[in-house]
Amino acid sequence: MHLVAYLFSGPTSHHHGMWRHPFSTNKFLEPEFYEHLARTLEEGFFDALFFADVQGIYDYVNDSYDAILGKGGQIGLLDPIPLISQMARVTSRIGLGLTLSTTFVRPYMLARLLGTLDILSKGRMAWNVVTSAGAMESRNFDIELPPRDERYDRADEVVEACMKLWHSWEDDAFIIDKDSGEFVDTSKVHRANYEGKWIKTRGPLTTPRSEQGYPVIMQAGSSERGREFGARWGELIFTLQHAKEDMIAFYNDFKGRMEKYGRSPRDCAILTSADPIVGETESIAREKQAFINERIDPTLAIALVSSHTGIDFTKFPQDRPIEDIRIEEGSRGSFDVILQGSKAKGLTLADAAKQFATSELCPQLVGTPESVADQMQDLFESGAVDGFVLTPTELPGTFETFSRSVVPVLQKRGIFRKSYAGSTLRQHLHD
Amino acid sequence: MHLVAYLFSGPTSHHHGMWRHPFSTNKFLEPEFYEHLARTLEEGFFDALFFADVQGIYDYVNDSYDAILGKGGQIGLLDPIPLISQMARVTSRIGLGLTLSTTFVRPYMLARLLGTLDILSKGRMAWNVVTSAGAMESRNFDIELPPRDERYDRADEVVEACMKLWHSWEDDAFIIDKDSGEFVDTSKVHRANYEGKWIKTRGPLTTPRSEQGYPVIMQAGSSERGREFGARWGELIFTLQHAKEDMIAFYNDFKGRMEKYGRSPRDCAILTSADPIVGETESIAREKQAFINERIDPTLAIALVSSHTGIDFTKFPQDRPIEDIRIEEGSRGSFDVILQGSKAKGLTLADAAKQFATSELCPQLVGTPESVADQMQDLFESGAVDGFVLTPTELPGTFETFSRSVVPVLQKRGIFRKSYAGSTLRQHLHD
Repeated sequence: MHLVAYLFSGPTSHHHGMWRHPFSTNKFLEPEFYEHLARTLEEGFFDALFFADVQGIYDYVNDSYDAILGKGGQIGLLDPIPLISQMARVTSRIGLGLTLSTTFVRPYMLARLLGTLDILSKGRMAWNVVTSAGAMESRNFDIELPPRDERYDRADEVVEACMKLWHSWEDDAFIIDKDSGEFVDTSKVHRANYEGKWIKTRGPLTTPRSEQGYPVIMQAGSSERGREFGARWGELIFTLQHAKEDMIAFYNDFKGRMEKYGRSPRDCAILTSADPIVGETESIAREKQAFINERIDPTLAIALVSSHTGIDFTKFPQDRPIEDIRIEEGSRGSFDVILQGSKAKGLTLADAAKQFATSELCPQLVGTPESVADQMQDLFESGAVDGFVLTPTELPGTFETFSRSVVPVLQKRGIFRKSYAGSTLRQHLHD
Repeated sequence: MHLVAYLFSGPTSHHHGMWRHPFSTNKFLEPEFYEHLARTLEEGFFDALFFADVQGIYDYVNDSYDAILGKGGQIGLLDPIPLISQMARVTSRIGLGLTLSTTFVRPYMLARLLGTLDILSKGRMAWNVVTSAGAMESRNFDIELPPRDERYDRADEVVEACMKLWHSWEDDAFIIDKDSGEFVDTSKVHRANYEGKWIKTRGPLTTPRSEQGYPVIMQAGSSERGREFGARWGELIFTLQHAKEDMIAFYNDFKGRMEKYGRSPRDCAILTSADPIVGETESIAREKQAFINERIDPTLAIALVSSHTGIDFTKFPQDRPIEDIRIEEGSRGSFDVILQGSKAKGLTLADAAKQFATSELCPQLVGTPESVADQMQDLFESGAVDGFVLTPTELPGTFETFSRSVVPVLQKRGIFRKSYAGSTLRQHLHD
């Protein structure tokens, strides 16, 4: 089983009540905070940690960032690049992932930056490839977003170009002979000379190859085009489903697509997202779950549902049952999908939004260490997933507790590593 | 007096024999190497260290990177961004500078990355602003270079946009009240809404202000347009002259330009570049100088002169006196300027190139700790410079020796700090 931790350099990783948890330290601007997280996750033998990221503050509701910033939603307060570099220095085994956009950053810079981090971490980097879908980021960068399929076509070229750059240097190119003055055998360093429809780069990269050759490719796209991209390049895919049958369907669909790219299903690990909420007893765990879910600010919950549906829910009465809300025909479908579960229960809009913002957004694995391990083992052994991307409800507590209590149970059952067999992230993924 | 260390993440910082020095460790791919340098320079109370950088491997001679890469010239093997982040964690006072291009990187990314490093380092960052002049980098990035003046016009806009982004957050915007759920007072966070002729960005930046507000602006441009840019924005200017009268002329010209931007001459420190070569005695120092200058590979020296003049010197006989070389009229001027000193002495092309690659390229301060301090003090007290950008001839030896021997002499004479008075780089520059 593979485990990855999902981080965001701000108040909310995935659960929007996180920063308000009484045990959360909220030291988002302190290097020590991130270093402690990295050490904690390595003590729990996680395959990797990674930062999800967006280049800006969400403002999808009424063109305003008031709710997300004012109430502490998903904001990457700091650029994760320097954080990952520092986390690399206090760990020696855990993989380290960065989210970088193929639309906003040039391939030469991507390849050099990721290649450098891969060398400094001795082969532990992953690149979470995103194509950037948001108008907010587009306006911060003043780069017009191509339509989705074209963004992925460009992303294919960007990754092709990066691969060429990461292979500029053969592994034994260095000579470094002070007497003769020979520094590098230049017959072993090559230009990339990549030329696609959108992307061009020449090379060579300034940066030699790392212990794992080049960074592991991570991806999360679940659209038809996104899955094709993932099937071609992805070595670590993270996804989000709620029902086991949906996970199995995604798993089989995705692995089935890999063959046409000459890849074996074993070349990619598929991980589903979940919030672990662990208590000493079942009843403590349930109460912890209710407690943290109650911490979600109603304004933030409404903003979140609005941003996911494209419907401005702030203009509807918050305290009336969902069924009573009149909505224009065009938005009906999206509205129904998102709030489907809630309607049946006659919830108010405010309560439905809060529910969406918690368990609907990301499934919660609640229970004692044994019962959380049971749920994970069941999904793993049903062919639904190769592992989990775990998201915190308190920081650093969620990962401390999980590493100390659930990990030992998984280890005892023989489905999770007791130590790192290899030293690079790519090796961990093939453990 | 202000002191800054000039680094490059590869075999040559400035002196092209550096990596061949018997005491150089050449651990360019090891984080520990850079961390040791940072600690050493902080022990010597340097204002700052910075990485010069180019995005690619120079190939100006015959479109080939054979000489520079094969013989170990100026190559930034690693991207300095992650290095600076790691160096920030093992130091607490020294300033840290990154070279980033206004032509190749978008303002939002520049502002967020530098702003993040400024927070993580608690206000110690400098941005060495470059506009990127080289065709080699342009081909790696597939971005066409505008003519020089237009590059600087764009750079003005990029810095204006970054300044707007760095001032998105007022200093007391954070609330972080778990009970009320108020995270940030959004009335204290503002959009940048920058719109210039070339550059647009919206904001706000995700990143609050640092202890020093925003990074120190560094710059090296010496063209007419470059000086205007520096006079408007620069807080730390580094330059390269050989004669004291040229330094004084540059100093006065530059400081004279500042007033029209509403700035006092004290708002910017002008530093000249030099290689310190320190020995226990004058004769040891002279011998050390001859020794290291002899380490420069002739192929590399010829490549270097060729790249600086735009003349392909590889096609001329290397062992004939300069005077005998026939050169087409168009290139005459550039040829004369570069090799002026050498011609008089009847040197061969090979020897002239080697001389260019050493002391002609960067003046060498040679002698005992006292006599090196004398030379520095004289320039400092003549109104020629506010300090020095020191470049190494061996690593980490040059900076270890300088910090242990010349710094104490400068301190005793009362012209260099005995401890850091402030904690931010901007404070050091106003010590």
